[in-house]
Amino acid sequence: MPHIALPEDLPGITSAFAFRPATAVPMRALAEVLLRGPNTLTSGEREMIATFVSSRNDCDFCQASHRAAAAHHLEGDYDLVDAVRRDYESAPISSKLKALLAVADKVREGGKQVTSVHIERARSEGATDTEIHDTVLIAAAFCMFNRYVDGLATWTPTDPQAYHQMGERMARQGYVRPGQG
Amino acid sequence: MPHIALPEDLPGITSAFAFRPATAVPMRALAEVLLRGPNTLTSGEREMIATFVSSRNDCDFCQASHRAAAAHHLEGDYDLVDAVRRDYESAPISSKLKALLAVADKVREGGKQVTSVHIERARSEGATDTEIHDTVLIAAAFCMFNRYVDGLATWTPTDPQAYHQMGERMARQGYVRPGQG
Repeated sequence: MPHIALPEDLPGITSAFAFRPATAVPMRALAEVLLRGPNTLTSGEREMIATFVSSRNDCDFCQASHRAAAAHHLEGDYDLVDAVRRDYESAPISSKLKALLAVADKVREGGKQVTSVHIERARSEGATDTEIHDTVLIAAAFCMFNRYVDGLATWTPTDPQAYHQMGERMARQGYVRPGQG
Repeated sequence: MPHIALPEDLPGITSAFAFRPATAVPMRALAEVLLRGPNTLTSGEREMIATFVSSRNDCDFCQASHRAAAAHHLEGDYDLVDAVRRDYESAPISSKLKALLAVADKVREGGKQVTSVHIERARSEGATDTEIHDTVLIAAAFCMFNRYVDGLATWTPTDPQAYHQMGERMARQGYVRPGQG
């Protein structure tokens, strides 16, 4: 049961957004820019970083919903997203994305855990400054979203189909909801 | 030295904001609502929560700048802010704020660390659902801001006077900068 009186029919973060529209607007806008805005990293890659961080942070709602969003960007390839979640170093993804996931994992542990070794690896695999920046911020932002969802004990649906549909909406329609929180 | 090519003359998070205005806009807007928007918690109380979380997350730039912002909201009372940072349970603040700081500290550790015991303590000290919500989100948001600042290794000024002036601007003018990142 949620720690506060959130709307009962809304899952996860959407109940918190509806409870407090004033903070929902910038949070939705941030997710939109980070995950769907113009970028040299694909939305599939960025959603995989979000899923990976949420998984390591043990946030069930965020990892299930962004896993589905990532899969929708990747032509339904849930196996690839799960391979990244499980062990990204052995997953069939680019060396650049592996290096960026290593940066994201350090950000998750704490900002000062990121060292020049992690950054040089990413750069040597072809990552640009903006890609490194966005990876750091996606990881940092999900350290916020994950804590927000679990810190309020929001409702976490258990039906996989619910996440499949949610992920499709996130991938296709995005994160901004004009006129609502 | 910053991990990526950030503008050299800007301290801490402001250099990252200038590097990437598209993400700066919603992040600044979120800080504005959380710390200066209409609220039954004063801006001084909210800046103390932000300072406390940043201190526990060991983010030098955020704790120094928000410490100064809090002090400006509290008629220059740096001693009070430092008492909260050091040991909030013995600080001369309300029982409600102590209970909210306990919630914030759990959010910082991880969302699932917040239990009904922490929430019931806050409620029994008079905290409303919105105050609990905002405390959870301030703590979660500073888990993002702190990791963003340190994950990019932004420049951290060492002159206390620089933070005193920065805190005054944050408290008086706020976090939104029309026309810039």
